[in-house]
Amino acid sequence: MATDIKAALRRQRIETPSWAFGNSGTRFKVFAQRGVPRDPYEKLADAAQVHRFTGVAPTVALHIPWDKVDDYADLARHARELGIGIGAINSNVFQDDDYMLGSVTNPDPGVRRKALGHLLECVDIMDLTGSDTLKLWFSDGTNYPGQDDIRSRQDRLAEALAAVYDRLGEGQRFLLEYKLFEPAFYATDVPDWGTAYAHCLKLGPKAQVVVDTGHHAPGTNIEFIVAFLLREGRLGGFDFNSRFYADDDLMVGAADPFQLFRIMYEVIRGGGYSERVAFMLDQCHNIEPKVPGQIRSVMNVQEATAKALLVDGDALAKAQAERDVLGANAVFMDAYDTDVRSLLAELRGEDGLDPDPMAAYRRSGYAEKVVAERVGGAQAGWGA
Amino acid sequence: MATDIKAALRRQRIETPSWAFGNSGTRFKVFAQRGVPRDPYEKLADAAQVHRFTGVAPTVALHIPWDKVDDYADLARHARELGIGIGAINSNVFQDDDYMLGSVTNPDPGVRRKALGHLLECVDIMDLTGSDTLKLWFSDGTNYPGQDDIRSRQDRLAEALAAVYDRLGEGQRFLLEYKLFEPAFYATDVPDWGTAYAHCLKLGPKAQVVVDTGHHAPGTNIEFIVAFLLREGRLGGFDFNSRFYADDDLMVGAADPFQLFRIMYEVIRGGGYSERVAFMLDQCHNIEPKVPGQIRSVMNVQEATAKALLVDGDALAKAQAERDVLGANAVFMDAYDTDVRSLLAELRGEDGLDPDPMAAYRRSGYAEKVVAERVGGAQAGWGA
Amino acid sequence: MATDIKAALRRQRIETPSWAFGNSGTRFKVFAQRGVPRDPYEKLADAAQVHRFTGVAPTVALHIPWDKVDDYADLARHARELGIGIGAINSNVFQDDDYMLGSVTNPDPGVRRKALGHLLECVDIMDLTGSDTLKLWFSDGTNYPGQDDIRSRQDRLAEALAAVYDRLGEGQRFLLEYKLFEPAFYATDVPDWGTAYAHCLKLGPKAQVVVDTGHHAPGTNIEFIVAFLLREGRLGGFDFNSRFYADDDLMVGAADPFQLFRIMYEVIRGGGYSERVAFMLDQCHNIEPKVPGQIRSVMNVQEATAKALLVDGDALAKAQAERDVLGANAVFMDAYDTDVRSLLAELRGEDGLDPDPMAAYRRSGYAEKVVAERVGGAQAGWGA
Amino acid sequence: MATDIKAALRRQRIETPSWAFGNSGTRFKVFAQRGVPRDPYEKLADAAQVHRFTGVAPTVALHIPWDKVDDYADLARHARELGIGIGAINSNVFQDDDYMLGSVTNPDPGVRRKALGHLLECVDIMDLTGSDTLKLWFSDGTNYPGQDDIRSRQDRLAEALAAVYDRLGEGQRFLLEYKLFEPAFYATDVPDWGTAYAHCLKLGPKAQVVVDTGHHAPGTNIEFIVAFLLREGRLGGFDFNSRFYADDDLMVGAADPFQLFRIMYEVIRGGGYSERVAFMLDQCHNIEPKVPGQIRSVMNVQEATAKALLVDGDALAKAQAERDVLGANAVFMDAYDTDVRSLLAELRGEDGLDPDPMAAYRRSGYAEKVVAERVGGAQAGWGA
Repeated sequence: MATDIKAALRRQRIETPSWAFGNSGTRFKVFAQRGVPRDPYEKLADAAQVHRFTGVAPTVALHIPWDKVDDYADLARHARELGIGIGAINSNVFQDDDYMLGSVTNPDPGVRRKALGHLLECVDIMDLTGSDTLKLWFSDGTNYPGQDDIRSRQDRLAEALAAVYDRLGEGQRFLLEYKLFEPAFYATDVPDWGTAYAHCLKLGPKAQVVVDTGHHAPGTNIEFIVAFLLREGRLGGFDFNSRFYADDDLMVGAADPFQLFRIMYEVIRGGGYSERVAFMLDQCHNIEPKVPGQIRSVMNVQEATAKALLVDGDALAKAQAERDVLGANAVFMDAYDTDVRSLLAELRGEDGLDPDPMAAYRRSGYAEKVVAERVGGAQAGWGA
Repeated sequence: MATDIKAALRRQRIETPSWAFGNSGTRFKVFAQRGVPRDPYEKLADAAQVHRFTGVAPTVALHIPWDKVDDYADLARHARELGIGIGAINSNVFQDDDYMLGSVTNPDPGVRRKALGHLLECVDIMDLTGSDTLKLWFSDGTNYPGQDDIRSRQDRLAEALAAVYDRLGEGQRFLLEYKLFEPAFYATDVPDWGTAYAHCLKLGPKAQVVVDTGHHAPGTNIEFIVAFLLREGRLGGFDFNSRFYADDDLMVGAADPFQLFRIMYEVIRGGGYSERVAFMLDQCHNIEPKVPGQIRSVMNVQEATAKALLVDGDALAKAQAERDVLGANAVFMDAYDTDVRSLLAELRGEDGLDPDPMAAYRRSGYAEKVVAERVGGAQAGWGA
Repeated sequence: MATDIKAALRRQRIETPSWAFGNSGTRFKVFAQRGVPRDPYEKLADAAQVHRFTGVAPTVALHIPWDKVDDYADLARHARELGIGIGAINSNVFQDDDYMLGSVTNPDPGVRRKALGHLLECVDIMDLTGSDTLKLWFSDGTNYPGQDDIRSRQDRLAEALAAVYDRLGEGQRFLLEYKLFEPAFYATDVPDWGTAYAHCLKLGPKAQVVVDTGHHAPGTNIEFIVAFLLREGRLGGFDFNSRFYADDDLMVGAADPFQLFRIMYEVIRGGGYSERVAFMLDQCHNIEPKVPGQIRSVMNVQEATAKALLVDGDALAKAQAERDVLGANAVFMDAYDTDVRSLLAELRGEDGLDPDPMAAYRRSGYAEKVVAERVGGAQAGWGA
Repeated sequence: MATDIKAALRRQRIETPSWAFGNSGTRFKVFAQRGVPRDPYEKLADAAQVHRFTGVAPTVALHIPWDKVDDYADLARHARELGIGIGAINSNVFQDDDYMLGSVTNPDPGVRRKALGHLLECVDIMDLTGSDTLKLWFSDGTNYPGQDDIRSRQDRLAEALAAVYDRLGEGQRFLLEYKLFEPAFYATDVPDWGTAYAHCLKLGPKAQVVVDTGHHAPGTNIEFIVAFLLREGRLGGFDFNSRFYADDDLMVGAADPFQLFRIMYEVIRGGGYSERVAFMLDQCHNIEPKVPGQIRSVMNVQEATAKALLVDGDALAKAQAERDVLGANAVFMDAYDTDVRSLLAELRGEDGLDPDPMAAYRRSGYAEKVVAERVGGAQAGWGA
């Protein structure tokens, strides 16, 4: 069984986000850190470190325009030289002044056209980089009751999504993200999985839902959503992070490792442990160093996956069928309570990696090197 | 304009639930009240009082088996004699010992068959009473991770819903209710509107979603869901009540009258102010007397409706188009801030009702009468 | 170090509640289970099983009047014969019809006197049973704004607490419980730790706060409260259980084992791992069998405690002082990620217990025995 | 009675925050607005407009260092010339790079000293401006379990608060603010009113708690806290704003006007409608224009106050004493349902103000004037 689990763990791919390597913060303050990348090339270099030490993070998601470059083919080539590749393209229709009252759902048709133009440009970048996935997050919404018409905004959203869908080439797809609130504080236009799902359903199979683990109301059972979307064939991937309160964007697994385990269990149970479901990180490292923050996060996902793979499916099914509540729960918890760190260390050793990625990264001197080298210039950040 | 609003208010129908007239409580205690009905006939008598004084509550929802009688035709006749009619039939698959681990999603096929049998029996009762609406609430779910298989439970649910759907006659429909939690405390099988919607969509137009205003996670924007379901043609009706915390089942409008107003606005805006969207109360009067509790609740819905009808649609659309955030909000709030009680009093007067239903009920002596008459026998309640 | 940890684990005492062995449920249904005790003597017998197999549950909390007997001395003797003792006395001022609008905060002075009388009677029972702890939970509150005066209710509460405090004998104390909501749905009279703390502070050292882990608003950081109350010398104990939503009263550790670990860490860190801080279970086993439900819960607390004891305090303090965010978190998580089950199995073996309490209980045949014996009579439950 | 209410409304003072007039936003984007002030003098000019049209906003809170000037006496004189005065001084220990891991609770003693120095400097500014109130909000906390020691941070906090307290002159006080989360995402050092209260209690009467209406966990009953703190003599004031989700900082009264009414009722009921309880706004106008946003907010507080003053105390007390749940609630709701806008318009007319402050401000041309004048320079904002 350990052999099967190792084989499964070897297949896992966890995508890092380029923006995790730049500075980030809250509305109160963005704390700058030393050695932070100043351009997409340096972000890729950092991301390559995460892959170097974990072996399971071979792609990096880009964010446009934060990662805008003149020559995307060159950027993709640079990535390949670093041993990694370009992952999902993330659109950004929330940082231009025009978008104050929304992007694709803005009452102003001119703003809507501009926003749609950006989304289509992102598909162009997919073509240029070979990326097969467009991630769509709309911050669109309203802050005050009456401010705009909830229903008209849905009509506008549907129109924009259809235009993007039609532009997708073969082998390309988009993932539609939902989020309860922030930055809209009254009615967000895609607030929950149901809204994202309903829109995707009308468009076709290239439109899928992405689950950001920090985007739900308190108490929401996320693994239920995962199981449901998989049953419907509409789970496109994850934006992993963790939270105690709102969309805190802490390191995945840091706030509720048991929840992460339950999610990974439903992924596996529902046949989602495949290439069609993207495991992406989407986090902020506001106060901790970024590269090791990503390494730690990748390891947390791996550990949760290993535990989920350990669940004894036969024993579980038997206990469930016998309606043995405590017995079924015990089978489930037995996997969770297992310390899988030595298994993962062993796996890394077999694959020529250091068994302890965090220590290996620390010893590598990379952090000191970039602090020394990256002097001058403007550090990358969310507002870049 | 006041004329139009009055005409619209005259068309409104608010359904009372038979169980609101029986005793109810929390898991800690059901406090018995004097004069409470002892059988469905007495519940109808109480419901008739609500209609007598408000003029807008002409139907009563039944709950099977709480309202089981030998002769439903006789019960329907009794209702007619009281000036009211039978509304939705509510199924109950949560109070038999068999249902401890679920009804239609139970791992035990025998229990599933039994539960389905009950649902089909409810359609029989619809035939007998002339009811056109079946309300389906499933308390099904699990308390512990691993206890049962989330996905298999969806398969079982889909199977049961299809069987009920096929049994529906012409002009009949079912409303599928969702609820975040309670009595299941880990994973509820129909936890949110998205799940209910997805199931309904596969079945056809006779399957619709019912929104219970107390069944959402904290912070959920209910009026968004209302607007969305109306846009999709899938809003079947409301179970109205209010809450500060969980599913508190307080009188509708008691906890957040502004929210109720916003919901009614979206109903009207989305074309849901029609016979297809049922306005039903679903409440507990744990500590307040039941008949006046229902009268007050009906009035609260009326007042929210009147305010929503008062919204100046032209001015609102203009402000929204001009992207005047404060202006649009002001138009919206202007309606909410209006005291509509005199308008409603006037309306009642014109229609031959007492302008003050609460006072009129008090003066009627009905409460004292039933306390005196209803001596002996077992009071109706949730567990009955 | 393992020796120290074992020694510490051997000192742990976890109190079971008599009511966990009776039937319980939600407002929708109490599912009866076979073999459930019919009187306090049988509850004690069940509780003794929990201690027999875990070795760390030597006392049982009583609930008055659920556990009312004619001869408390005899009950205490019976407990001793079973190898256990009587723990905290829990008062109940929420199930008489008089208490519909509150007990000690009721607007009616007669009801207040009655409620106070009950509380004083509980101190009498402490004298008779040798219990040193009175647990006070007040369900008091209001459902509707305006229903009663929030401030006057505090005055009445203060008066009652003072009277109880004055009645306490030497070596006796009371623990004041707080709860956000349920059964009161608008304003609960002791809704949070601050309220409980402020009242205790005015009374003196015999008044302490008890933390029920299910009684907080979503997102509340419970371990912060634990740390704070310990710093203030006012943490009297825990009512352990777990929840995904509201006061779900699931088995402790079932919903968020990481949270339980963090709580136990703060207990130890703050010097609360002592006799003054009572570790009590307060749970419902609505759908799972009760005795093994309690055994599992006791084991969950033990495992969280063992992990908390494993935290390398020196390494943690060093990383914290060096402001190494990831390093400090890693030291903390290293303890949590450790599988402590073999350590606990070893400990049990050394102490002459079966290493696997659940299996040993199953093999004992006790469950089958009580099902066969406990025929007829009324099963114990919350309403008993 | 209307006379008394008018007199009471005339006594009301609502303080505007200087930062409300600058740009603000979320972590995703700060949208700049035209005409926004570029320095504290211009902020005061804007604030004076709010007072000019409402007549009840005669003071402005400053935020240091956002409102740092060389000559505070000159700034105070400028305010007087504008017809207003300087209100509370707000400290800021969250925007220097040093404060990444906390200010007064930082593990680094040097950072703590620096933070304390800033707090003492704020008292100096109080002396210079004649302000009698220091508002202390600490963003301090941790993002990850284990990151720092919860208890040690309380020790450090207590030490800093004591030093500030000792520095306060006669007639000066500080208000300690609490907040559930953000920017700290695991454990905030002053997360709830209980923590703030406990610290204030140890220091003395010059230390009081300030309630920011957006700083609570979902479901928290804020008016209970208000009533409780008033009973304890520890309510120092309010930071008013409103929220649907987290700390959304929307216009007060925009999200839940009924809650605002309930809060104002408890203020009046508890004797807090006096100079000792400061009514301050603390809001962001991310997408709406700032001066009218403030005017609207002031009016919302006024309207809630007028409604709260309208509650018929005798009738309410009678219904409460008679335990008439529906009757007491009806008395309460009767006040809330009243449209008080004409009463307030009348009051303004009598006092020589325009009955409609929003329209008057619009007509004044002030907005256009500052857009034309304030060209060039850096607009004020949170990060300024």
